[in-house]
Amino acid sequence: MLLTQPLRRMGQLAAKRLAVVDGAERRNWSQVNDRVARLAAGLGALGINVGDRVAILALNSSRYMEAYFGTLWAGAVAVPLNTRWSFEELAYGLTDSEPDVLFIDATFLPHLAGLRERWKGLKHVVFIGEPVAGSQELITYERLLADNAPVPAAPVPPEALAVICYTGGTTGLSKGVMLSHLAVWASSVALSIDYAHIASRDTIFLHAMPLFHSGGSAVLFATTIAGGTHVFLPGFNPTQILQTIQNEKITHTQLVPTMVRMLLDQPDFESYDVSSLQTLIYGGAPMSAAQIEETLAKLPRVNLQQGYGQTELAPYISSLRPEDHVTTGERAKRLRSAGYAGLCSEIMVCDPDGKELPAGEIGEVCVRGPHMMSGYWRKPNETAAAMVDGWIRTGDAGYLDEDGFVFLVDRIKDMIVTGGENVYSSEVENAIARHPAVATVAVIGIPSEKWGEAVHAVIILRKDQHATESEIIEHSRRHISGYKCPRSVEFRTEPLPLAGPGKILKRALRAPYWQAGQSRIA
Amino acid sequence: MLLTQPLRRMGQLAAKRLAVVDGAERRNWSQVNDRVARLAAGLGALGINVGDRVAILALNSSRYMEAYFGTLWAGAVAVPLNTRWSFEELAYGLTDSEPDVLFIDATFLPHLAGLRERWKGLKHVVFIGEPVAGSQELITYERLLADNAPVPAAPVPPEALAVICYTGGTTGLSKGVMLSHLAVWASSVALSIDYAHIASRDTIFLHAMPLFHSGGSAVLFATTIAGGTHVFLPGFNPTQILQTIQNEKITHTQLVPTMVRMLLDQPDFESYDVSSLQTLIYGGAPMSAAQIEETLAKLPRVNLQQGYGQTELAPYISSLRPEDHVTTGERAKRLRSAGYAGLCSEIMVCDPDGKELPAGEIGEVCVRGPHMMSGYWRKPNETAAAMVDGWIRTGDAGYLDEDGFVFLVDRIKDMIVTGGENVYSSEVENAIARHPAVATVAVIGIPSEKWGEAVHAVIILRKDQHATESEIIEHSRRHISGYKCPRSVEFRTEPLPLAGPGKILKRALRAPYWQAGQSRIA
Repeated sequence: MLLTQPLRRMGQLAAKRLAVVDGAERRNWSQVNDRVARLAAGLGALGINVGDRVAILALNSSRYMEAYFGTLWAGAVAVPLNTRWSFEELAYGLTDSEPDVLFIDATFLPHLAGLRERWKGLKHVVFIGEPVAGSQELITYERLLADNAPVPAAPVPPEALAVICYTGGTTGLSKGVMLSHLAVWASSVALSIDYAHIASRDTIFLHAMPLFHSGGSAVLFATTIAGGTHVFLPGFNPTQILQTIQNEKITHTQLVPTMVRMLLDQPDFESYDVSSLQTLIYGGAPMSAAQIEETLAKLPRVNLQQGYGQTELAPYISSLRPEDHVTTGERAKRLRSAGYAGLCSEIMVCDPDGKELPAGEIGEVCVRGPHMMSGYWRKPNETAAAMVDGWIRTGDAGYLDEDGFVFLVDRIKDMIVTGGENVYSSEVENAIARHPAVATVAVIGIPSEKWGEAVHAVIILRKDQHATESEIIEHSRRHISGYKCPRSVEFRTEPLPLAGPGKILKRALRAPYWQAGQSRIA
Repeated sequence: MLLTQPLRRMGQLAAKRLAVVDGAERRNWSQVNDRVARLAAGLGALGINVGDRVAILALNSSRYMEAYFGTLWAGAVAVPLNTRWSFEELAYGLTDSEPDVLFIDATFLPHLAGLRERWKGLKHVVFIGEPVAGSQELITYERLLADNAPVPAAPVPPEALAVICYTGGTTGLSKGVMLSHLAVWASSVALSIDYAHIASRDTIFLHAMPLFHSGGSAVLFATTIAGGTHVFLPGFNPTQILQTIQNEKITHTQLVPTMVRMLLDQPDFESYDVSSLQTLIYGGAPMSAAQIEETLAKLPRVNLQQGYGQTELAPYISSLRPEDHVTTGERAKRLRSAGYAGLCSEIMVCDPDGKELPAGEIGEVCVRGPHMMSGYWRKPNETAAAMVDGWIRTGDAGYLDEDGFVFLVDRIKDMIVTGGENVYSSEVENAIARHPAVATVAVIGIPSEKWGEAVHAVIILRKDQHATESEIIEHSRRHISGYKCPRSVEFRTEPLPLAGPGKILKRALRAPYWQAGQSRIA
């Protein structure tokens, strides 16, 4: 109820105001309310009760938003499935969450027969796209709305489960994060306050990042709470984004740094009027000072805000505010941080025993607040490991500076434990990278009889440069403590395997060293 | 935990920043955190456990804030007692809430022996004033802090009881409103967003309205969540307020309209520099267009914001925004409204059966949202009457206009039911007041064999003017439906009894007509 209330409130306060834009479709708050309340009635007619799961497998659209809100309006639990998942992963998501109803669009229709085969509990499939071959046999979305009169939102308490949001990761390892109405609401309200000017009816938010992602849905709810206007694009397409910013006078959008770069690099960038844009939210990784300067040169009126989040925190943990995007002087070091705690986040850095560490010391970043997940869906062991003493263990290693800025240094699982000491691979990598001959470096832990794990560096040298193992070790000793220095060095010439843009897949580097029966887990 | 989290967050983000000012005392967030965590430890040492009640009976001070937060930090329930209550009412508050510990200041020390006599369960009394005669035997506040090392905040869930806040009203009728951490937090966060600029670390909030009141505590929490600075005054003193605004560069304060008038009417008003003031929050009653114009003439840079609330909603229901303080033209009619729904409020106007009424129709104002009370303390019948189908029945009669602005017309209990029809006294009063001879009018229901209740008008005529009962009834017929017109009129010459500034005590007007055994209550 907590999450559908903003819809009803806007229906009262600004019934005729533009609520959603999706291509040629434009609807006001009164229409959106009516459609969502009809959809909830339709779900009821399909047998959906409070607490039942309803999955959504579709690209962004206004109907995606309605399906999301309609599910919540019915008191049911939305399961927005990852549109980048493989068939196997989708099948896993369905069998794990056990939805009775699935909303699907044309893009994913080819998977449907197979998915139905794998999850036989699926009672109804609602087609939310425009009619295509193969969609005739499904329940038509608009028919469902037309056939059902609006119902009031089902009364569920703030702690009721609202969403199961799957973490990325491979089949079988992906976990369903259970988020309550309160968790999503708290995260979204905090975003509204902390992210310059979202909390305004004048916000026109372009949703180009996928809505299945907890970051995408958080801005969906934040904009709804504020009563702003939603504009949907099915995916990331630089030209389409620039065109939409110009046509719809977009004030806010959310991208990842590589997308920002692609946008600015469009050859005809200058031909679009993007002067309406006030705030550009980016996440996933910090931007370099150079990229920030370039962005601000091309978009001088824009506030940049970086968000750090995790699905387990619905997802808002901290953010780097526009005023902290300072590219020169002492304060520029903060560009490497993930900003400071969001309005509803309490952050603690702790040692492996859970003891709080003082500012400057590296440990695991822990977060608590009203936006915490309720746990992992049907995974009590994983829940117990992630929620300790009321804190979410993020799995990120990092530290807080004296002003509460969060610096992330590593994933805890990439941390090396050698002779009882913790070594953060990024610290070693930074030291080695200072050697003039080093182009790329990745540091991992490899098995050692004596140390448990030993620090091992994988290096690609610059073209026409030379260095030996002992030179690298000697160089390291000048910058970091002895126990952190690599005990072995390996030189390669081919590019290292990547987990994503610029992100080395350390699991793949470690694999040859860690064979079956050894204790290291991926 | 939800309510103490902002303290810890500010301790991390801005340890050295000014948090509280109270006379010569100035403390930063680090110090306030330390003191609150020590106080919680001290309460633990006094035997306070999660869920136990801790009462506070004191004028505003920084220690009041610490006592409030310290109680919550310990997981206990704060019971801020009404400082305007009589001894009997205070004794009722204690015996009803059964606190183990009481914080008291010098002002209320004379009541202590008597209160202890009445509530024998009181185990400890902590004196939060400066030493005076009679305070020696009590636990000294600073001693309690010095003797106890800081402890972490007790982990309690968002739905845990945080505060019992008594509604006004006479002994025995006063109800303890149970507010959870979530309720107070949601109301405060909504205030932060909706009330221009509270949500900023640059806010310097002057607390001159009593902290025991849910309105006073909501801005206390809102300012803490935002990380602003608190400045405390023990009570309302116009000169002291002007002096404090000037000295501390106050940006925000909260008053009632009569206090605003007193402030502006200070003979030496012009001699103070009040240019720091950005926002003046007023509540309790709307201000007239004339008063708004006068206020804006004297404080041209100030944003005016009117709040409508009720303790049962922790207390924020709706507010009239600065941009809606328009004194001329069509929009000026909104000045008579209580603004529109706050960020977390959903408002519905319903008929006596709970059926929602369309815009423009008068009924009972109902509100729901995360800021709802959990119920009345140990009063299940009163709780069931006030919380119906998940909505709080405010007891206010009113209507919504087409844009969601809330217009209050009456208290439901002042509504007259005559021949099965509802008559709102304010509508009849407005009609009668248009008669040129009428100076003051109050409309009440009196017993009628035929109609159940009959509409009755009590009128004071203007000096040297004349009107008869039949003239008044005839005049009414020209403005309102026949069933709403008074069936009897009574002329008086003495002033009518008042319930507060400008508020006629209708209960006293009704009393002579309704004798014991008749059904009308109060």
